[in-house]
Amino acid sequence: MTHPQIQRWKTLYTQTKNCLCIGIDPTLQSIPTGYSETISGLTEFLSDFIQISQEHCIAFKPNISFFEALGIEGLQCLETICKTVQQRVPIILDAKRGDIGNTSAMQARYIFDYFNADAVTLHPYMGLDSLEPFFKYQDKFHFVLGLTSNPGSRDFEESELNSGKTLASHVIETLSHWNKQFHNIGVVVGATEQKLATVRAIDPSLLFLIPGVGAQGGTYHSAYEQGKNTNDLALVNASRAIMGAIQSKSSMENDIRNAIQALTKPL
Amino acid sequence: MTHPQIQRWKTLYTQTKNCLCIGIDPTLQSIPTGYSETISGLTEFLSDFIQISQEHCIAFKPNISFFEALGIEGLQCLETICKTVQQRVPIILDAKRGDIGNTSAMQARYIFDYFNADAVTLHPYMGLDSLEPFFKYQDKFHFVLGLTSNPGSRDFEESELNSGKTLASHVIETLSHWNKQFHNIGVVVGATEQKLATVRAIDPSLLFLIPGVGAQGGTYHSAYEQGKNTNDLALVNASRAIMGAIQSKSSMENDIRNAIQALTKPL
Repeated sequence: MTHPQIQRWKTLYTQTKNCLCIGIDPTLQSIPTGYSETISGLTEFLSDFIQISQEHCIAFKPNISFFEALGIEGLQCLETICKTVQQRVPIILDAKRGDIGNTSAMQARYIFDYFNADAVTLHPYMGLDSLEPFFKYQDKFHFVLGLTSNPGSRDFEESELNSGKTLASHVIETLSHWNKQFHNIGVVVGATEQKLATVRAIDPSLLFLIPGVGAQGGTYHSAYEQGKNTNDLALVNASRAIMGAIQSKSSMENDIRNAIQALTKPL
Repeated sequence: MTHPQIQRWKTLYTQTKNCLCIGIDPTLQSIPTGYSETISGLTEFLSDFIQISQEHCIAFKPNISFFEALGIEGLQCLETICKTVQQRVPIILDAKRGDIGNTSAMQARYIFDYFNADAVTLHPYMGLDSLEPFFKYQDKFHFVLGLTSNPGSRDFEESELNSGKTLASHVIETLSHWNKQFHNIGVVVGATEQKLATVRAIDPSLLFLIPGVGAQGGTYHSAYEQGKNTNDLALVNASRAIMGAIQSKSSMENDIRNAIQALTKPL
């Protein structure tokens, strides 16, 4: 049986013809001209942003840390935003959680019950019992860090194990194994061709969330082609490349469409 | 030069004669009789709890996930609680954060600028550039996950590298190396004798935060003896063993003192 979130992504893909996940990483300084540079201005801007862009993507990925940096008012904005999105497009709440079991259960409650997110990002370090309280939310989806594209990925992720594999490959193999039990696990993999090629072969059916497209250097098409699974699905995330292209409130609709077209147009 | 937080812990240790860190992991169900089972009851309870227990410990470790599980009102409670503690005892905000650099910078802003915590817990997986935005808060202290005592520690932390070391030992060696540059890094190590013995030798000066005492099975004294550094310092955390011992509002002062004495009394 296909997982309900996978089914939603498949359906949306047939409509949008892309696998774009739009990252929402706002600061007060990034609010376009025409909105007030306040939390209420931000909330208004993001509501408009979502209304305009939701027909052109298959997921939104709000980065909770950017809302947290604005304090409790920032989280109130996130709460409003999550309610705005709910109607159509799945929300991947980018929160990078993971702790001992009873704490992870609290984290899952926050992400899934309070914010009503459809999916979350998680840290693998502490192993299965730190992730299980999330996985037990059967209808939700979980992207666990696998191999990232930041320089620090060399410090631990790319450490070579005595089996000859890297830690990241071992993590992804283990996630693939757990996914056969839980059916709601994907992997975060950085958008460089070499990294995607390295790990795509481990389990061709595993769903990848691929950040790092646009402002961080990767291209949408190479990320999608290298990263898609056996269902032709991948979640290719762009944040600054879209939100950063908006000049003003009045030009926003065009700015977003142009940015998305430039990013996803056939080569 | 001794780091200002280390200096605070040293001074408090001479006063309290223990290295107890009190974990604050509350739920509405854990509020003692005499307080209302609401967020405002929780805030009142925790303020009283801190007033009573602050003379008997060298740190408080609120677990942010337990407050998050109560939604934004829960975080408002945490904010109030952090202000209550500020006066005397350092706050380690147990948040297990860590992400790419620009996101980690937002996380650090939330933890250190918004909540004004003195220290934080972090995930090592993504490496140095994911941790550096925290380390750059020079006056703050950072406990990075090293070797935990949950069953899932076997999944990745205890993986053997081709050097013959485990991943956890490699992480702790690397943290020791980074600490020579930043001077504000400690390690989270689980409170089992075997785990502490394995990693204590890596760098005898590194400061350990040791959860898992009391309800999770370890004893305060064995954790302290196995885990203390060359300054005779360790942060030995107990959460449920103290807060869970409280019967009611009227007996709270005695209940806390008895629980702390039972936990820390010489064998």
